[in-house]
Amino acid sequence: MNMYDLINKKKNGMELSKEEIFFWVQGLTEERIPDYQSSALLMAIYFQGLTLQETVHLTAAMVKSGDTVDLSGIPGIKGDKHSTGGVGDKTTLVLAPLLASLGIIVAKMSGRGLGHTGGTLDKLESIPGLRIDLSKEEFMENVKSIGLAVVGQTEKLVPADKKLYALRDVTATVDSVPLIAASIMSKKIAAGGDFIILDVKYGSGAFMKTREEAENLARMMVGIGSNMGKKTAAVLTSMDQPLGNAVGNALEVKEAISVLKGKGPQDVRDLCLRLAGVALCLAGKASHFREGEKLAELNLDNGSALRKFREMIVAQKGNPQVLDHEELLPQVPFRLSLISDQNGYISAMDTEGIGLAVMKLGAGREKKEDMIDPGVGVVFYKKTGDRVKKGETLAMIHAHDENRAEEIRNMLRGCLHYGKDKKDPQPLIYPQVLSQA
Amino acid sequence: MNMYDLINKKKNGMELSKEEIFFWVQGLTEERIPDYQSSALLMAIYFQGLTLQETVHLTAAMVKSGDTVDLSGIPGIKGDKHSTGGVGDKTTLVLAPLLASLGIIVAKMSGRGLGHTGGTLDKLESIPGLRIDLSKEEFMENVKSIGLAVVGQTEKLVPADKKLYALRDVTATVDSVPLIAASIMSKKIAAGGDFIILDVKYGSGAFMKTREEAENLARMMVGIGSNMGKKTAAVLTSMDQPLGNAVGNALEVKEAISVLKGKGPQDVRDLCLRLAGVALCLAGKASHFREGEKLAELNLDNGSALRKFREMIVAQKGNPQVLDHEELLPQVPFRLSLISDQNGYISAMDTEGIGLAVMKLGAGREKKEDMIDPGVGVVFYKKTGDRVKKGETLAMIHAHDENRAEEIRNMLRGCLHYGKDKKDPQPLIYPQVLSQA
Repeated sequence: MNMYDLINKKKNGMELSKEEIFFWVQGLTEERIPDYQSSALLMAIYFQGLTLQETVHLTAAMVKSGDTVDLSGIPGIKGDKHSTGGVGDKTTLVLAPLLASLGIIVAKMSGRGLGHTGGTLDKLESIPGLRIDLSKEEFMENVKSIGLAVVGQTEKLVPADKKLYALRDVTATVDSVPLIAASIMSKKIAAGGDFIILDVKYGSGAFMKTREEAENLARMMVGIGSNMGKKTAAVLTSMDQPLGNAVGNALEVKEAISVLKGKGPQDVRDLCLRLAGVALCLAGKASHFREGEKLAELNLDNGSALRKFREMIVAQKGNPQVLDHEELLPQVPFRLSLISDQNGYISAMDTEGIGLAVMKLGAGREKKEDMIDPGVGVVFYKKTGDRVKKGETLAMIHAHDENRAEEIRNMLRGCLHYGKDKKDPQPLIYPQVLSQA
Repeated sequence: MNMYDLINKKKNGMELSKEEIFFWVQGLTEERIPDYQSSALLMAIYFQGLTLQETVHLTAAMVKSGDTVDLSGIPGIKGDKHSTGGVGDKTTLVLAPLLASLGIIVAKMSGRGLGHTGGTLDKLESIPGLRIDLSKEEFMENVKSIGLAVVGQTEKLVPADKKLYALRDVTATVDSVPLIAASIMSKKIAAGGDFIILDVKYGSGAFMKTREEAENLARMMVGIGSNMGKKTAAVLTSMDQPLGNAVGNALEVKEAISVLKGKGPQDVRDLCLRLAGVALCLAGKASHFREGEKLAELNLDNGSALRKFREMIVAQKGNPQVLDHEELLPQVPFRLSLISDQNGYISAMDTEGIGLAVMKLGAGREKKEDMIDPGVGVVFYKKTGDRVKKGETLAMIHAHDENRAEEIRNMLRGCLHYGKDKKDPQPLIYPQVLSQA
C-alpha cells in the first residue's frame, strides 16, 4: 500500500478501503506521510467526496490516533452535544446544566472561539475563577459527584484531527462536508458519551450557508454516529441572525443565566428546550422530543437547571455569586449606542459580519494565539423582522474605548439591512429532527 | 497576495492572474511556498483545469525560473522538436540530422527514458564514445560549425519544472493537460529555437490514450507556443504499436541508421518525413508539408542526412564507424525467439506492456537512478495487421541471459492479441497538422 495509489484512487473517484484510510491517518499522525501527499489527497477528497462508509473509516482512524475518554465506570446515560458554531450561541451554558438536572451525565469537552464564531470555553472563563483546565482526575471526580463538567479538549484526544485541520486550514480544504463531519464526530466519539446531539447551523452567520448544505452535513454526521454505535440526532437551526441578543463572552454568560432563571430571550430558550427534548428522547427518558421539551421546561422554570449550573461553577472553582450579582462578571467602561438612521423594519442581519465586528472588538480571535477580552461585546435590542424608528437604539456596544467602539459601530451599521415592509425572519428551528431510522 | 487565496480561487474554478501565477512559481522555485500548498493547488488544477491564458503565464513563469539558451548569435533558423514519448520512437535520431542537412539549425536538448518510454539520450549514448554532456561552449561551437548538436538538458534550465514535476510525480497530478503542456513548452521555449514541432502520441503505448486527448494537449501546446512568439505545429501520431521494429537502445540506433540510409521500416521513415515536412514549412523553406516531405525524402535517399549524422557523431566524440559497422554497437550474448502458438492475424499490441517488458529487460529505467543496458531489446518481425502462422517467429529478444529472456518472452506473449480476420492498424499519422491559423 502506498500513498500515491490512495491519492490516485480518490482522484479518479474510487472508494478507499478501511485499510487504506487507516494507513493514511496513521502515517499522517506518525509523520511518515509527507504533508504534500496528504494535502493532495485532501484536495482530491474536496472534489470527489467520501462515501458514508469511507467517512466512518476516517472517523474511526482519527479516534484511534489518540486517547479516548472512558466513561464506562460512571453509572447512567452520558450525553454529548456539538454545535457547528454561530454568533451569540450560548446554548451549551444552558443545555449542559439543564441535561444534568434531568439525570443525564454531561462530561463535555468544548472549544474556543475562532474567527467570527465564539467558543464555550471563552464564555465560561469569563466567570471569575472558573477553571476549564481540570486534570483528568478532577474532571472524572466532578462528573461522578455532580454529573456535570465542561472542560477543554486534551492535546492527546484525536491528534490526527489537529494535524489534518492545520493542513486543511492552509490548503483551502476546510469546506468539505465529509472532512468536517469526520473532524467533529471523531472528537465526539473519542469523548466517550452514549449519545450525541448535533446543532447544525445554516445561514449568514454559519459555515453552511443553506439549509440543504446543513442537512447534508447533519445526515453524514448522524450516519457516522449510528455506524459507530452512538445514538445520534441532529437539529437544523438558522444562523441568519445572532442567537439571543448578546454577543460577547461575559454578556452571553449573563444572558445564559437569565435563561436558566426561566427568563431570557425566547429564541435561546426555544433552542435549548428543543436540544434538551431531543436529548431526553435519545436517553430513553422521553418518547417524543415534545415530551422531552416539557420535562426540560419544568427544570428551567423551577430552578433545577440553575442549581446544577451553580454546582458546576463551584466544582470548577468559579465564583457562584455571579448568578445573583451579574456585576461580578467582567465589564468594560465604555458604551456606545447604535442608533437607527431610518424608519422601517430590519430585513436582514449579516451575521458573519456581526461576528467579525465583535471579534475585532476583542471578544474573539483572528488567530489561535490572540488574547480575548471577556467584557466586550454587543447587545442587540432589535433583530430581523423588528420595526425600527429613526433615532431609536438598535444595539449597545460594550468596549474599552471610544475609538474602537466607533469603528465597530460603523462595521455593525453595514451588517444591518432595512426594508419598508415587515419581513419575518427564517424560523429558528427546522421542524424535522434528523436521526437514524 | 497569498498562496491560500490562490488555491481557493482555483478550487472554486476562477482564473488566476499573471501576477498570481508568477507569485506561485517564483515562490516554489525559491522554496518560500511550502510543498503542501503547491500540491493542493496542483490537485485543484487537475480538477478545474487552466485556461490557455493561465497556461501561457505558467509557461512563462517557469521559463523565467532559470537560464535560457540564447541562439540569437547563430545565423539561420533554429528548429526544435518534442515527442510526448513512445515505444521504439527513434525519430530524433533521424530527424535532427535530416533537418540539419536541410539547412535548419538543430540545437537540441533531449531527455532520458523513464518507465515504458525510451529516451533519445540513452539511445545516443549506445554509440561508443559519444558524449551528450557537452559544455555550453562545446555545444554552441558544434551548433555553429555543423548546425547540429543533441545534448542533455542542463540543471539550470527551467528549475521550476523539476520541482513541479517531482511534486506531481508523488501526488498523482501528472496527468493534467495544462500542466503537461506547460512543462513541455517551458523547456522548448527556454531552449531558444525559433520554431517547435510537436509529435503528440496517442494509443496503448502513449500517455494519452485517445486521439481526442492528444488533440487537446496538442492544441494547448500550439496555443502556448504561438502566444509566446514561437511558430509551433503539432502532428498527432498513433502509438498503438511500437514505432518501427526495434525497441531497445542500440537496436534502435541501428534502425535509425538504416532509415538514414534510405531504408528501414516504412513507419519510421514516414513519420520522420512528415515531421521534417512540417518543420520545413515553419522554417519558410516549403509552402506545404507535402512539398517539405519531398525535399526531406531527397536528403534521406541521397545520403545527406546520414553525412550530417556522421558529422554530429564525430563532433560529439563518438565512433562514426558504427554507421558502416553495426557490430560496433553494444550487443548482448543471448537471443530468444518469440514463436507464434497459433494461426491468424495480430489484432492488437499492448504497447505500454511491451515498453515495460523491454524496460525490465534492462533497456529502460523504473527509477531515475537505474542503470540501463544499451544492448538489450526486442526486434519485432510481425506487427498489428500481419498474418502469422503457428511456429513462426514473431520477435527476437536480445538479452544477457536465458532466464531473463524467458521471463520477458512470457510478458511479451501477453502483449500480443490475435484475431481470425485481418484488422488493419490505426493509421500512424493523423492527417491534420495542428498549428495556429
